[in-house]
Amino acid sequence: MPKRNLARFINCLSGFKSANLIGTQNKAGNTNLAIFSSVVHLGASPALIGLIMRPDNNARHTLNNIKANQQYTINQVSESFYRSAHQTAANYAENESEFEQTNLTTSYIEDVKAPFVNESRLKYAVQLKEIVPITHNNTMLIIGEITHVICEEMAIKEDGSIDIEALNTVTLSGLDSYHTTQRLSRLTHADPSLPVQDINDSHDAVKDAAR
Amino acid sequence: MPKRNLARFINCLSGFKSANLIGTQNKAGNTNLAIFSSVVHLGASPALIGLIMRPDNNARHTLNNIKANQQYTINQVSESFYRSAHQTAANYAENESEFEQTNLTTSYIEDVKAPFVNESRLKYAVQLKEIVPITHNNTMLIIGEITHVICEEMAIKEDGSIDIEALNTVTLSGLDSYHTTQRLSRLTHADPSLPVQDINDSHDAVKDAAR
Repeated sequence: MPKRNLARFINCLSGFKSANLIGTQNKAGNTNLAIFSSVVHLGASPALIGLIMRPDNNARHTLNNIKANQQYTINQVSESFYRSAHQTAANYAENESEFEQTNLTTSYIEDVKAPFVNESRLKYAVQLKEIVPITHNNTMLIIGEITHVICEEMAIKEDGSIDIEALNTVTLSGLDSYHTTQRLSRLTHADPSLPVQDINDSHDAVKDAAR
Repeated sequence: MPKRNLARFINCLSGFKSANLIGTQNKAGNTNLAIFSSVVHLGASPALIGLIMRPDNNARHTLNNIKANQQYTINQVSESFYRSAHQTAANYAENESEFEQTNLTTSYIEDVKAPFVNESRLKYAVQLKEIVPITHNNTMLIIGEITHVICEEMAIKEDGSIDIEALNTVTLSGLDSYHTTQRLSRLTHADPSLPVQDINDSHDAVKDAAR
């Protein structure tokens, strides 16, 4: 298989991926925005989030800014701006902001030295904790702690879960395929002595939460 | 927020997640199967795949088997068996196989000391490369190299990509919500001097592959 085809093939094996924009800025306040498909949940307590980063041209600006300010934002990509989100992967010069180039807009909150994506319906600020080198292929696992969450209230359920499908959050497969979702079901906590059950309504979810 | 609600909340922040079953066996040949939402692409060349593992009761059997045999399988979860896949998370005893308990069936290939999920339409064998401890929350990044891929041929496109939506692969959000997908588009490689473009057909994809 040609090398680029092989890259497409291997990129599909992990399954559906998250689509997130990482917002950063340098010491001079110049903003950067880059799409990543490798944001991964690490744990809820403490609230840690991981990000696999390849030190290529495009990611280098993001990495330098994270190292400089120790803060970054993660912004879920919704259907309404997934095309702009994809375009942030283009190899813009360091002094060109992907926000301007892709018609996405910044928003800020106090204490966070990184721009949020105004258009994102679920976003959060992250404090850098550690950069773990993955020596086998010269990539890194960036570990951060979630410090501030901004989410549309309508999507937050009584049991704490967030209906990210209601926010039109998209999912990625491979290098370039974007998808919306259709919920099959929420399933109750698996128990060896019980069959699989649906969480039918908020009452069930609250019962399950009480476990 | 109560602790379990907070866990649900934080688990939704990373966005849509992959749904995969990890197949392993111990030295005596007893099989284990466990669902994970944290399989992440690390790189195509070499073909590396990551897995975040929390050493709780359920994952411990998987971890012990991976350490013992240095091999495991990763099996994408499709719509037809997502409920069985979820049930593998139940806390079965070490001598109970999740295959039997959930009515999934094993299949094997030569040279791989781990069971595949027969029902899975895209699956692969992985050779353990490294276990990286994540000290902040006592989890681990398991790094493996993909050695054998088994995939329904109809889903493999001319440009190397795999149409995992055509395989009815599901995606997960939070702890318990399963979703099918609906493709919005495939987009061409982002270029700073060009607007975002759809890959309309295999011809476009081949052109893009030639870049």
